[in-house]
Order: sequence, then C-alpha cells, then structure tokens
Amino acid sequence: MADTARAALDLTSLGAEMHALVRELYPICRSITGDGVRQTLRALARVAPLELVEVPSGTPVLDWTVPREWNIRDAWVADASGRRVIDFRASSLHVVSYSVPVRTHLPFAELRARLHALPAHPDWIPYRTSYYDETWGFCLTQRQLDALEARGERAEYEVVIDSTLTPGHLTYGELMLPGELEDEILISAHVCHPSLADDNLSGLAVAATLARHLSKRPRRHTLRFLFAPGTIGAITWLARNRERASRIKHGLTVTCLGDAHPFTYKRTVGGAAPVDRAAAHVLARHTEKAHQTIDFFPYGYDERQYNSPGFRLPVGSLMRGRHGQFPEYHTSADDPAFVSAERLAESLGVLAEIVDVVDGDRRYRNLAPEGEPQLGKRGLYRAMGGTNIPNLQFAMLWVLNLSDGEHGLLDIAERAAMDFTTVRAAADLLAQHGLLAPI
Amino acid sequence: MADTARAALDLTSLGAEMHALVRELYPICRSITGDGVRQTLRALARVAPLELVEVPSGTPVLDWTVPREWNIRDAWVADASGRRVIDFRASSLHVVSYSVPVRTHLPFAELRARLHALPAHPDWIPYRTSYYDETWGFCLTQRQLDALEARGERAEYEVVIDSTLTPGHLTYGELMLPGELEDEILISAHVCHPSLADDNLSGLAVAATLARHLSKRPRRHTLRFLFAPGTIGAITWLARNRERASRIKHGLTVTCLGDAHPFTYKRTVGGAAPVDRAAAHVLARHTEKAHQTIDFFPYGYDERQYNSPGFRLPVGSLMRGRHGQFPEYHTSADDPAFVSAERLAESLGVLAEIVDVVDGDRRYRNLAPEGEPQLGKRGLYRAMGGTNIPNLQFAMLWVLNLSDGEHGLLDIAERAAMDFTTVRAAADLLAQHGLLAPI
Amino acid sequence: MADTARAALDLTSLGAEMHALVRELYPICRSITGDGVRQTLRALARVAPLELVEVPSGTPVLDWTVPREWNIRDAWVADASGRRVIDFRASSLHVVSYSVPVRTHLPFAELRARLHALPAHPDWIPYRTSYYDETWGFCLTQRQLDALEARGERAEYEVVIDSTLTPGHLTYGELMLPGELEDEILISAHVCHPSLADDNLSGLAVAATLARHLSKRPRRHTLRFLFAPGTIGAITWLARNRERASRIKHGLTVTCLGDAHPFTYKRTVGGAAPVDRAAAHVLARHTEKAHQTIDFFPYGYDERQYNSPGFRLPVGSLMRGRHGQFPEYHTSADDPAFVSAERLAESLGVLAEIVDVVDGDRRYRNLAPEGEPQLGKRGLYRAMGGTNIPNLQFAMLWVLNLSDGEHGLLDIAERAAMDFTTVRAAADLLAQHGLLAPI
Repeated sequence: MADTARAALDLTSLGAEMHALVRELYPICRSITGDGVRQTLRALARVAPLELVEVPSGTPVLDWTVPREWNIRDAWVADASGRRVIDFRASSLHVVSYSVPVRTHLPFAELRARLHALPAHPDWIPYRTSYYDETWGFCLTQRQLDALEARGERAEYEVVIDSTLTPGHLTYGELMLPGELEDEILISAHVCHPSLADDNLSGLAVAATLARHLSKRPRRHTLRFLFAPGTIGAITWLARNRERASRIKHGLTVTCLGDAHPFTYKRTVGGAAPVDRAAAHVLARHTEKAHQTIDFFPYGYDERQYNSPGFRLPVGSLMRGRHGQFPEYHTSADDPAFVSAERLAESLGVLAEIVDVVDGDRRYRNLAPEGEPQLGKRGLYRAMGGTNIPNLQFAMLWVLNLSDGEHGLLDIAERAAMDFTTVRAAADLLAQHGLLAPI
Repeated sequence: MADTARAALDLTSLGAEMHALVRELYPICRSITGDGVRQTLRALARVAPLELVEVPSGTPVLDWTVPREWNIRDAWVADASGRRVIDFRASSLHVVSYSVPVRTHLPFAELRARLHALPAHPDWIPYRTSYYDETWGFCLTQRQLDALEARGERAEYEVVIDSTLTPGHLTYGELMLPGELEDEILISAHVCHPSLADDNLSGLAVAATLARHLSKRPRRHTLRFLFAPGTIGAITWLARNRERASRIKHGLTVTCLGDAHPFTYKRTVGGAAPVDRAAAHVLARHTEKAHQTIDFFPYGYDERQYNSPGFRLPVGSLMRGRHGQFPEYHTSADDPAFVSAERLAESLGVLAEIVDVVDGDRRYRNLAPEGEPQLGKRGLYRAMGGTNIPNLQFAMLWVLNLSDGEHGLLDIAERAAMDFTTVRAAADLLAQHGLLAPI
Repeated sequence: MADTARAALDLTSLGAEMHALVRELYPICRSITGDGVRQTLRALARVAPLELVEVPSGTPVLDWTVPREWNIRDAWVADASGRRVIDFRASSLHVVSYSVPVRTHLPFAELRARLHALPAHPDWIPYRTSYYDETWGFCLTQRQLDALEARGERAEYEVVIDSTLTPGHLTYGELMLPGELEDEILISAHVCHPSLADDNLSGLAVAATLARHLSKRPRRHTLRFLFAPGTIGAITWLARNRERASRIKHGLTVTCLGDAHPFTYKRTVGGAAPVDRAAAHVLARHTEKAHQTIDFFPYGYDERQYNSPGFRLPVGSLMRGRHGQFPEYHTSADDPAFVSAERLAESLGVLAEIVDVVDGDRRYRNLAPEGEPQLGKRGLYRAMGGTNIPNLQFAMLWVLNLSDGEHGLLDIAERAAMDFTTVRAAADLLAQHGLLAPI
C-alpha cells in the first residue's frame, strides 16, 4: 500500500487524545459569540496552530449583521429559601442561549412559559437557542419541572441570568496549510454549541487533529480548516473571503463524529462532486459496517451556506449520527460518555482517507496508448502465464486503458471496483517507468 | 394551501353533473362524421362555449382526405316473420360504424360473415368500425348469434342499413381560453365513439367541465380544448393549425376517466416533458391508490398524431382503464353504469391539478443568493432554535437554494419530495418579501 | 420473418462439422508462433479462404517485438530405466509453452521447481506459458507428481525438451469480405492455444464457419476475420493496419463457444457501442436460457488490445464459459468431449444474428412525418377496427414515429421491445411504399 495519510495515523493514541480534548472542552458555555468560543479556539490552537479572527458586532455580512457579543457568568432560578432549583453551574444547557440579562422575582405561573423540558426523556435537559429574538429562558429536566409544578402556581422564584449582550466581536479560528496548488480543500466545523460532546466537540477534535497530522505531510491541494459558529460564522467567513472561497474545490463539514452510529455522508447540492464520489468510495470500501450516503437538503450545518446558489462550493458533510435523528441530539445526554475514543479515531481515519482521495485524484495520459505496452520487459508483469492476475498488475492494466485524458484515478478505481490506494500505487509505478504522465 | 384550480372545485356536485351528461349523450350514434357528432358537440357547448368547426368532405388533410359524411337513421336484420332479430334502435353498437347502405334479403349462410360477436362475453355487443373500407356489418351478442345459428343456414333474413355516405362535413369542437402567454396547454378528447360511456363520454364530460371551471380562473398559459373524431379529427385540426400547433407546450388526451380502475398516465414520446413530470408528480402525491405511468407507444388515441415526428407535441394521455386492457373496452358493457360520478369527479380533480402544475411551474431567481438570507428578520422563520423545522420554512430553504436559474418549481418539488402546492406557496411568500424574482 | 443470415443456417449439420474440426485440430501443439499455428490456419483455410500472413521475428510492433519462432518436436522426463514419466506425445500441455531447449539429467530435488500441477484436480494437466522469459518447465497431473515424489528427492531423471527458438515468423490468418461500405465488422479469434478445445478451437471453428456462410450472402459492411495468436498477434495486426483498423465500427472476439455454460457477452470499454446493444438485444430475445452481459475489463483476450486508448475500437467479446471462471479452463479437461456440436451450432446462430443486427441497423427518415400516414389506403393496415393490432403493423407505427433522424432500427426495436427482425421487416415494407428513406 502507498504511504497514505490514513496509513500514517496512530489511531489508538490519537483516539484517547481526542477524547481527552472533548472532556476538557465539555463544560465550557459556547454560543455564536463570546468568551466560551475564544476559550475553545485557544484550546484547539494547542493542537494545530489556528489563527483567531475577531469580527466586530454590527459588521454587515451578506444578508446578515454580526450580532452583539453574548457572555454569561451565572444564572439560576432559586426558591424562596434561596436554594437554586435550576443552576447554570450544573450545566451550560440550563440557559437558553443568547438569553438577555434578567434579574427578577416571578410566580411559577409566569415563569412557566420560560421553561423548556423534554417529557419523553424526563432526565435530560434540552438545548435551546434564541439568537435573533431578544428573550430569555431556562431548560431543565422534566423531573425538575414536575417538582416545580408540585409546589404550585403561586410559588415565588428568584430568576437571575447574569449575562451581557454588548457590542463586541464574533470569533472564529482558521488554519491554512499551503499545498502545490491554489485549489483548496475545506474542512469546516461549527464551534457554537455549549456542553454537547458529539455535536460538535467531536467534530472540533477530529478536525484539529487531522490538521496537525496533515501539516506534516506532502499534499497537492492547499488545506483550509475553519472552526466557526454555525450559520453566522460561515456567513461571516464567506462575506470576508469571496475570492478565496472560489478556490475551494472540495469540502466537508464535520459533526457528530464520536457516537456509535454508522457513518452518514450527506452529498453536495450537485450530488456528483469529487468529494461526493470520494466519500462514497471510502465509506463503501473501507468501513466494514453499514453506512449511508444521503442527498443534500438545505438544512443541517454550514454545508447550507457553502452550497448556496451564490457560492455553490462543493461541500458535503460527514457525520455518524444524523442531526435530529437520534434522541440524544441537542440534549444533555450528548455528553462525553456518549462519544468514545474508538469512534473518534475511526472517524479521523475515514476523514483522512477522503482527503487523501480528493487530494490524490488526478488524470494521467497513457504514453504508450496503442495496445497494451509490454509490461513484462519492464519487470512489471509476472513471467509465467496462468489463469489469474495479481491485483496490482490488474490495476496497471486498468490505469493504462482508462488514462485517455477523460478519466482520473477515482474514475478508474470506481470502474475497476478497486481501492483508490491500489490504483494510485499502480499509476505511480507506471509513471516511474515512463508509461504515464500527469495531465 | 394555495388557491389552486383543484382546491376550488366542488367535486361532489360536478361528479353528479358529469354523470348526467354521460347518460344524456349515451344513446346517440356517433362516428367520425355526421349528425351524432354535431348533436354531441352542441350538448358539450352548453357546458363550455366551444365553437363547432365544419370541414368539407374531400379536403386533403396531411396524408389523408376528409371522408364522406356518414349518417344513419335505422338498421335491422329481420326474420321471415318481420321480427327484428338485430335492431339498431336497441343499441347504436349493432351496426359496424360507417357501414354502407344495404337493403337486401340473405340466407344466414351468407349473412354469417357480416356478423361480429364476442364468444367470451356472450351478453355483450362488440364495437366495430370500417371507416376506410366500403363494407357493412352487424354486431350482436353471442347469444343472439347462437339463436340465429339454431335456425339453420338456410333461414332467410331481411337486412337493412338505412345509412347515407355522402359529401358533407367532418365536425369538431374547439375552445380557446387566452392566458398571459401565447404558449398553450391542450386538452384533447375523441368524440367519435357511439354508445360507449367510459370511452369516451367520460373524457368529453371531464374535459368540458374543466374548460368551464378554468374559464373563470386566472392562468398563465392559453388553454385549448379540442373535441374531435379520433385520428382523422386530430389530423384535420393539425392540418389546419400547423402554426398554432407549434405553440402547444403541454398537452393531454383524455379517455376512460369514469371507470373504477386506478389512473394510468401514458407519457409523451420524449418521456421527460414537463407534462410527464407533472402527471407523475400529481399521481404519486395526490392519489392514495395505486397508479401507473407507462411509456409512450404509437397506438391508442390522438397522442399518436400529436407526437408524430412532424409535430412532436408533448402530449401525454390520462386515463383510468387502459384501452384494450379491460374486458368491457369497446363493448356494450361500457355503459353508463360502468362509470360513476365519484370516479368522474376524481378524474376532474387530478386533471385540474396536472394543469395547475404545468401552468404554475416556472423558474425564479434567488435575489440574495450568497448564503441563506436571514428569514428571521423578515418574520419568515421561527424564533426559537430546536431540532426540527416546519414544512413551509423548509420549502422556502429549498426554493432559495435551487432558484439558481436552472431549476423550476416542479424540479424543486421533486427534489424536495414535497407537494408542488407547498413549494409554490413558499415561492410566493419569498417573492412577496423581495427575495425571489420570476425569470 | 426476413431472410436473415441466422435463418439461412443449417445449424444441425454445421454443428457436427464444427465439432469434427475441433477434434481434428485438438492434438496440434500451437503457441504464439511456429508450425502448429501454420498447420491450424491451413486447416481453417479449407473452411473459408483465409490468407496466411508471415511477419519476421524482430519486427517492432507497437511497444513489442515479434519474438523468435518456437517449434517443438518432442519432450519428456524419463526415469533411470528410460521410461517416460512425462511425455509430450501424450499431450501438448505437458511442456510449458515456449520452453527453451533442454537436455540434461537432474535429481528430483532440482527438477521439482520446474513442475506444475493442480492439487485440486489431481487428474488434470494445467496449461502454462512463458513467452517472454527464457525458461522451461513441465506440466503434469497431481497424480503423476505424487508418484515422482514417492520415488524420493534423489531419484535422477533424464529431462529433454527438443524445441527450437530461432529467428522465423509470426503467422496469422486473415479474410476480408468486401461489402457496400468501407466500414468494417471484425471477428477475431486467438489461435495460440495448444490442446484446448473450448479455448479456443471452438472460437476458430465458429468464426471460420460463419465466414464461409456470410461470404455467400449480401451485406452492407465489409467483414474481416482475423485468426491470430493472442496479444502479440493482435498487436502485430494493429501495428501493420493502423489505417484499416480505423474502419472497424463493430467487432467481437470469440472464445469458449462450445461448452455448456450460458452465453456471456463482455461489452466494449465504452459500454454502449452498437455491438454492445446488438449483443444484448440478441441474447435477451433469442436465447431462452439465462445469459449475462458484463462490463469490459482490461483482461481476457484481444478485446484488450482493440479497446486500448490508442485505438478504442468497439470490440466486445462473445463467449459461453468465462475465462478463468470454470474449473476446466486452461487444463486438459478442456478437451473435445467438453464441447458439443449442439453448443457450437447455437453459438454460430447467435453470432450470425449479432452480425445481422449490426450490419442491418441503420436510420431512416419518415417521408410523411406529420401525423400517421394513412396505411390503409396502401394496403398496409387491416380494414376492420377492433381492439388489438397485429405485430407487424405495430412495428410499422413504431418505425414511422421514431424515424426522425435520431433513431436507428435497433433503437426502435429496443424501445418497442420487439425483435430487430420484425422491425427491419416493417422498415423494408414502409420503404417499398415510399414512406421511408434510408439516411
């Protein structure tokens, strides 16, 4: 096998390292702006040298405006005795994200409409946001809510959200690894979710670890890693990088990469981009378990923005569990125990291999196109004729036959039903013997 | 739901009205020319204001010639006692259509070759024609035939067909409802069959009722309704309207719309015209029962002529029972009891909806194509972020993403697996908010 | 039915004749050069008048060089008593093809590495070659090998291969049957295998018999039959006939046509050439048994060379058993009893019919394209209208509708799900009546 990025990964130790990072980042309260995002990006910068970019509130970005910066120190609902019945210190999910500051006393009858729980999962806290509507609220378990209801409508509570919503900045992290080509491969992960492990500390850990690994390896494409708040972060980056965006030839958003579900790849809106074919190839040939590839739809994560008609960047999405399709999604059950070192490592391997394929896919021209060249006299073919043919020799015949200017290595791998890695190794061998030249 | 043509239909009362029309028209002896056709067209003109067009016998039309006009007053076969053993007054099917006049006496041995029955259905009279070969004959039930055979070969019969075949006219009915566009939608129904209810009084009743209904509604396309004798009628219309024909962008022939079979849609010869996709969409999403869409073949009704290589008009065919595929087809069992008000009404609804789709399908351009526009600030998006998304909002995201100049609303509905109606409503909303403009 | 090449074949007597030819040629030791090939080609020239072409050793052909000529008179391994324990006279397979001359004495311990057997089939001798590596060896049954091993490592043997490898010629046979067109149909069979009946005496017998049969019939295309050693023979022909090769519009390699397996057709590299569609059509409609059509892959027989990117000749491959996929392949079990007269005859019929289709497929233009022409007034249509339509009339309607300049007769046959023969008969009839003209 060739020296591929995936082959060079020590997945066992990297899995443990990524899980430790997830555990470290879990307690931080992230949102689309604020110190939680900065703290998270700084931790990721220890893994790979990403740069933090600060964009002022009020900056117009495409059809949007960078919002005010939100920070929160503490929040609670306390009963008459002063006991916190809902306590932000226990989980950052307890406060509806972007809640305006509040400091008041309310009877339960009035507080009730501000409380969000999940009757179907009475021990889980839901995750709720209200970025663009000035309001506030708390999330809690159904059991907590039941207990409050048992105290009656008239019970009075102290309600405090010690947050600030002030002019500040939106922060994102970016890392560019230059390659031989100006053409870029983008890996993008949203950084805005609070204490949720799979969505998306898993994506952050995998992407940052991949960035570090690939920074040490040769590559053809320039690689770009983006860690930005969902929607507004991608929109901000696109607004500031229209020119650069047009160089992105392949991309992936990554999310939910640590859970136990089989892989799902969501295609680009075009549905037949190289990254779509590379992901399908890798998942079909290199994961023993079930997996699925699904069509694009304009919901989910930042693939929505990249695939919008004004950009049409071919960005797919790699995940295990599908957003909105598993019960733990966007609840406190998505905690560090919900993700495992093994799954994070497997995801890192698959992602590395998809990048290997899109980076290594290219067209060659057969320099001896009339008939088959005599491989035997070049030591490329077994001497004794029998019934079957070794795999690498068969790959050479495929590469020779299809290297007519119309087919790239991935086309050939698909047609031959062979690993991309084997086909690339065959092409390397033929090129070394002067039978093939890159186009 | 939008204000669609289908939604505006009072199907229950229209079903009853159409069935009454079928019963009224059933006894009339129609053929490809003659007073039966005129009488039928005049009755349809009570429903919708169609114009009767008379084309003289002998007129060259494409590769054909308008034939002499056929009229029939009476016909019978009587036994020696003068009793009518076959009597035209009992059913117009008893005489082979276009039979030349005859007045003679024959022994059964000679008469036999002129008689047509259905051994497999001994109580049904078959329907037979001989338009372009000067001959005559009678159709009768197998039981009638058996009784005649029992009387022996030598029994003598009086045979009378009191018909005329003389220079006259071919008659068709036409109705044009101008729209915003010169582009036309054609609905065409054959009017030449005698006492057969499903084939095609059902098609006549549904088409005329639809014409009346649509005449009162706004529309983009010009609508054309044609009620003409099969083959020669369509050929005559095409010969006289070559210029106009080229404006037909969508079309349907309609037949067998009152029986209890599930719908069948027969595609245009190209197989991927907008009307093909509209019909498939409507049948797949709006009929709960089984249905089928089948490939074009050059047999059936006037879709044969419209789809001929010199015209290639994209005209499909909507039917319930398929011609030649159900036993009652072209027999006396296709009587008013074989069709029902409910089925006629359901067919009217489906036909109206197909017309809705082809009329309403168009392309828009996203006016804020970079990223997603901020729907929330326009009141088009729920404020609180959770897990799922309402259908109409999702439809808006689909319309925005795919309104790139390449996709029309039907493309989007198909891609999104949503009702055309929902997608059109989303487009209307976005256009009202200045985010979308028609192309 | 039309007067087709297949219909004119007397398959029973031809089957017996072909099987006799297989039996006659079976004992000859063929290789890629030498007298065995000449002797075989001369026998085939009795069937059809092919010309023998001799190309000198050392001639550069594409990336290859014509090798020295190999001939063999005798070969054996004899024990101390002089008894031949392996004897070339018993089977030409006993010697690795192209073995250099050897005359020596060896202990079994040294001889062992030169011996090839098939443990899984202890009574079969394998077929091995070493064309381009100067070496020698023997093939034997596993039982023979076991017996030698039982005599011990130290037993001494006389080893003789009485072969010559000297400057000489490569020989191939060629037959050209001129047609109306310069465009050619190629039938190519490899002639280099020694005593193997199915692979490829069956292909040689079927191709030569077809050549004789078609030489007596009218045809549009020029037909070319090539009987050449595998790989180097096709490469030699291509190197000497670059101009001519470009006239080949349809082609088939033929092999393994006498065994009891259902047919396999291997497509051209493009996968949608007329010969691909013709073969699929013929196999689907005219063989009652299972069959398969498989994608091209760059291994197998000389389709590899014809489909190489410098030529891209649309040459498929017709076979019954697939090379390498049945146990008798390339072993002594592929003997005359493994093939039958009935299978050879059936293969001849299918091959003839594929050639019929590619030769007869062409486009016509409907000369009365507006609507359907009135077939009745030309006597081409039944007079009495009823429910169904005879097959030939339906074929005429299909031909008229699709003869728009875009569709050929095979397109029409596929679309109509009718026999090509019926569609061609319909086209002939329409052309006779002036309704159709060839393009």
